[in-house]
Amino acid sequence: MTRVLREVRRFAATRSEPGVVAVSGGADSVALLRALHTCHAALTVAHVNHQLRGEESDADEAFVRDLCAALGVECRVRSVDVTALAAGDNLESTARRVRYEFFTEVANEVGAAWVATAHTADDQAETVLHRLIRGTGLQGLRGIAAERQPLPPTPSPKKGGGARTEEEAIASSLAPPPFLGEGVGGRGSSLFRPLLAVTRADVIECLAALNQPYRTDRTNADTRFTRNRIRHELLPLLKTFNPDVVSALTHLADHANEAHQVIVTAAGELLANAERPRAAHVIVLDALALGTSRCLIRAALRLLWEREGWPMSGMTFDAWERAVEVACRNAGACDFPGGVTMRHSGRVVQLSQRT
Amino acid sequence: MTRVLREVRRFAATRSEPGVVAVSGGADSVALLRALHTCHAALTVAHVNHQLRGEESDADEAFVRDLCAALGVECRVRSVDVTALAAGDNLESTARRVRYEFFTEVANEVGAAWVATAHTADDQAETVLHRLIRGTGLQGLRGIAAERQPLPPTPSPKKGGGARTEEEAIASSLAPPPFLGEGVGGRGSSLFRPLLAVTRADVIECLAALNQPYRTDRTNADTRFTRNRIRHELLPLLKTFNPDVVSALTHLADHANEAHQVIVTAAGELLANAERPRAAHVIVLDALALGTSRCLIRAALRLLWEREGWPMSGMTFDAWERAVEVACRNAGACDFPGGVTMRHSGRVVQLSQRT
Repeated sequence: MTRVLREVRRFAATRSEPGVVAVSGGADSVALLRALHTCHAALTVAHVNHQLRGEESDADEAFVRDLCAALGVECRVRSVDVTALAAGDNLESTARRVRYEFFTEVANEVGAAWVATAHTADDQAETVLHRLIRGTGLQGLRGIAAERQPLPPTPSPKKGGGARTEEEAIASSLAPPPFLGEGVGGRGSSLFRPLLAVTRADVIECLAALNQPYRTDRTNADTRFTRNRIRHELLPLLKTFNPDVVSALTHLADHANEAHQVIVTAAGELLANAERPRAAHVIVLDALALGTSRCLIRAALRLLWEREGWPMSGMTFDAWERAVEVACRNAGACDFPGGVTMRHSGRVVQLSQRT
Repeated sequence: MTRVLREVRRFAATRSEPGVVAVSGGADSVALLRALHTCHAALTVAHVNHQLRGEESDADEAFVRDLCAALGVECRVRSVDVTALAAGDNLESTARRVRYEFFTEVANEVGAAWVATAHTADDQAETVLHRLIRGTGLQGLRGIAAERQPLPPTPSPKKGGGARTEEEAIASSLAPPPFLGEGVGGRGSSLFRPLLAVTRADVIECLAALNQPYRTDRTNADTRFTRNRIRHELLPLLKTFNPDVVSALTHLADHANEAHQVIVTAAGELLANAERPRAAHVIVLDALALGTSRCLIRAALRLLWEREGWPMSGMTFDAWERAVEVACRNAGACDFPGGVTMRHSGRVVQLSQRT
């Protein structure tokens, strides 16, 4: 039995409820579908045609439809002109939003308890590397989550989408890994990545064993795009240092994830201890109760930002550092995206959003 | 004023006590010495001739002696045949031990309160990358510490030294960064790295501004050695993705360091809560009180290993994972280096070392 089949069977063993499989037609998702199909009876395939590569996109769609017909699995397709929809916004995040919205919709329609995507250990390693290069804290090192419990309905698209180039946006939108980790499970349906411990080599081995063809996205080989350069230049170089570098990076992501949970728990307690009654719309924190751990203060501020629904997308690595600085220093003030201001005076840290 | 001078003056401003500067003769340590010499009156230089490169090593020593004479700074030199001393053991860790022992000795002799080494942000980035590639948890991501408070006398050398090749050991022993982070300040003297926020480019700029020559270790260009390949192949490639990748990696090390402190504190509390009275030489932990956070259990076990003085050098990434597994599962046992055994039965986790 191939490694893919073993991992997928382990996943399916405890999930007999109907599920949705996201299938692009590429190697990873085709292997996931074939493996799930051997051990799970209630599958629906969801495919999004982003209309980004003309006839090739249509051929991907046809390939997925044919594969599903051959397997006797229902196939639902959404065709969206993502370029038009994005209208100059970040194409990558628009495409990702469209995908996960559609997966959620299909899950709701067919009464599925879960959605599975085919992200592999290689995707995980690439994501971790991408963030390492771009600059990240512990938060970002967690990479792609192996699962997400049911979340509220997909949030509305965010404007801007950070400092990435359009090129990168296009590149990432064409392929599965959501680098920014914003994948969203549907109302009531959880999101799973059963192949996250499986390498791309394992996937290819599985497909070869099944004599199963798959589609190749030719833009994946275009090394002008950051993600493709990580895959085709950086990872091969790293493998000359350590052939098991993918597992080194995925283990690190696991550790970062575990550490993050510890820190978020501690930061939640810190915030509860430090917060005083609001003065009108102004949040008041006791600077002494915040303590001196920059790590915990940073995590507590993140929790506060999330709770208040303040814009996070413009909160870069440096912006968080400035916020921590204001909290730690005895005086000072700083403005943040979305009209959020922070002021430290004596023992009091005040935060508010201009309305 | 160059960035090096600014950073060094900030460091020296609060440290008027006598200090020791470790100078190999390379660009980083020569820049550190020249910068410190402009703002600190009570310096002693310490140089170790490892006798690893014959005449070139002797020429390095002569260069450092001449520079000190020109600056009017006392220079103390230790010449050690490190290859003979290591006698087949890890050359790198032997060389590092010899260096830090000598720095400590000089600090004690001249009554210095601190020892400064010239590790830069580039060394930090290389260390972080080296560990990322080899496989590391949060622990290793912390990289090189900016300072170490006084520590107990230098520990005796450890046998073995892990899975590194002799080649790598030689390469690393020739150059400053202690990849394994075992640098040791002396009894009463603290260890500082005032250039840890300064890049190698800043160092070269500083030396150019002073028209100050320095020695080049030609083995640094030998890309057969892992560390040199990280410097000469990997880092340049990463800089094509992000020119500021060095600062991205050093910031990550800072975050990992901060997070590590939070986790160690929480793990210390966890251990105190979970530990029961010893049964003879057997340590007894309440499995329920250990909780379910793999991150905290791992950190608590590390604290226990350190406290008991059990051998850590053979405790690889995988060995710690096995230890966590035994603690988390309801039953099981495992042996670890140095005759340490761990057994989980019902609510009790027992640990002991065969004597």
